[in-house]
Amino acid sequence: MMRPIILVTNDDGVDAKGITFLTEIMRSFGDVVVVAPKEVMSGMGHAVTVKSPLRVKRITREDGFEKYSCNGTPVDSVKLAEQVILRKKPDLLVSGINHGSNSAVNILYSGTMAAVIEGSISGIPSVGFSLTDFSPNADFSSCEQYIRTIVENVLNEGLPRGICLNVNIPAIPGDEIKGIMVCKQGNGQWAEEFDERKDPRNRDYYWLTGVFRSFENGNDTDEWALANKYVSVVPVHYDLTAHNELSTIKKWKLNAQ
Amino acid sequence: MMRPIILVTNDDGVDAKGITFLTEIMRSFGDVVVVAPKEVMSGMGHAVTVKSPLRVKRITREDGFEKYSCNGTPVDSVKLAEQVILRKKPDLLVSGINHGSNSAVNILYSGTMAAVIEGSISGIPSVGFSLTDFSPNADFSSCEQYIRTIVENVLNEGLPRGICLNVNIPAIPGDEIKGIMVCKQGNGQWAEEFDERKDPRNRDYYWLTGVFRSFENGNDTDEWALANKYVSVVPVHYDLTAHNELSTIKKWKLNAQ
Repeated sequence: MMRPIILVTNDDGVDAKGITFLTEIMRSFGDVVVVAPKEVMSGMGHAVTVKSPLRVKRITREDGFEKYSCNGTPVDSVKLAEQVILRKKPDLLVSGINHGSNSAVNILYSGTMAAVIEGSISGIPSVGFSLTDFSPNADFSSCEQYIRTIVENVLNEGLPRGICLNVNIPAIPGDEIKGIMVCKQGNGQWAEEFDERKDPRNRDYYWLTGVFRSFENGNDTDEWALANKYVSVVPVHYDLTAHNELSTIKKWKLNAQ
Repeated sequence: MMRPIILVTNDDGVDAKGITFLTEIMRSFGDVVVVAPKEVMSGMGHAVTVKSPLRVKRITREDGFEKYSCNGTPVDSVKLAEQVILRKKPDLLVSGINHGSNSAVNILYSGTMAAVIEGSISGIPSVGFSLTDFSPNADFSSCEQYIRTIVENVLNEGLPRGICLNVNIPAIPGDEIKGIMVCKQGNGQWAEEFDERKDPRNRDYYWLTGVFRSFENGNDTDEWALANKYVSVVPVHYDLTAHNELSTIKKWKLNAQ
């Protein structure tokens, strides 16, 4: 049986601890090609690079394992991997392990999940993994068994066209994790976002920061799952249509009678 | 009656023709505050700036009209507008007029629509306008009546919490436009995306480019509407959960028996 070709990417940069950990796991599932930003690209969302040229650098090449960096975003990395490096679709795309949660609305700001969504737009079964610990030295060891379980299921079952997975793992000791929960995107919002300072010339500047506030969430959301020691798995699509609201907006007076 | 406070932003930069045109229209609806990136930020998606400090520059201030630029992305602009410049929520956010279509999956890459989605996360009624002409000198005159109609409806009817609108206007003579159609996000994908070149030192580099291919689309999608000379209005939400797939993924063998 052919080994699957597995593309590994992230938004924390090609040398981050999370992608190194994920790469080692994926090497037991197939032939791995790592293509990731050379620099940290957290918070880049679905950004693509159109104003400057992209470069690709080969870092290592050995049997069943290749590693490249690029000067672009996570989404650029996926496009370059498919169209310039592999010149075909990989059989699976995994992104992460992100240093920090991508639950709830954080999926929108996440370069890790943007790479996953880009993969699914392109028809590649794609999964993003995040650990709820922002530290560069986060301990990823509890992630391994859940990553293996989910990857085995994706390779066996496939994913429906246009559907990808957003997996978040609580940063708690592995024996405290209760299991995997398939759930919805939770509700929440960032608050108190700017740290306002003055530079030595007395001019204002602002650091984007803040705290994430989880709203009231039912027991079927990723926020609830993580707070209750479960690994959350949200099936994600890229149809942003609010289908339930179509009939309401159609009643508006939009066309002259 | 109080005039509404209207935040105007975009991703083509604070001096683009599209935002200037939109600002003039909005001044008849309320007190306008423009906060937009100083540079072109096309393709920035939902990116936020976390690695460098943000700066805000006041450009003009007159009765009922203020204009600021920032060194960040469209989403940064919305956050700065609400939390640093206005220090309260505006009554309405409009973004655009984008130079180029944001129909179908282009909503994901669009800074214009990311600003709109950010507004709706924050609870602000928010609408994005795009004209299907990428030219910096695009003729926006046919947009005015449709913008007015949609803004009147949003101010009168409000928008449900978490719902914003993605409005695309076909770049055809105004008298050929057939009306406004409320519809779904269409299907399509970018193809042949890289222009591969060699620099003077014979090293490879890549420009992201390509062509957008619209897939088979039913007559209830934005792609169909635009191709058939309608203004498309898609109600958009930021819940990316693929609700229809939850039951399928729940059947997977994710937890040891």
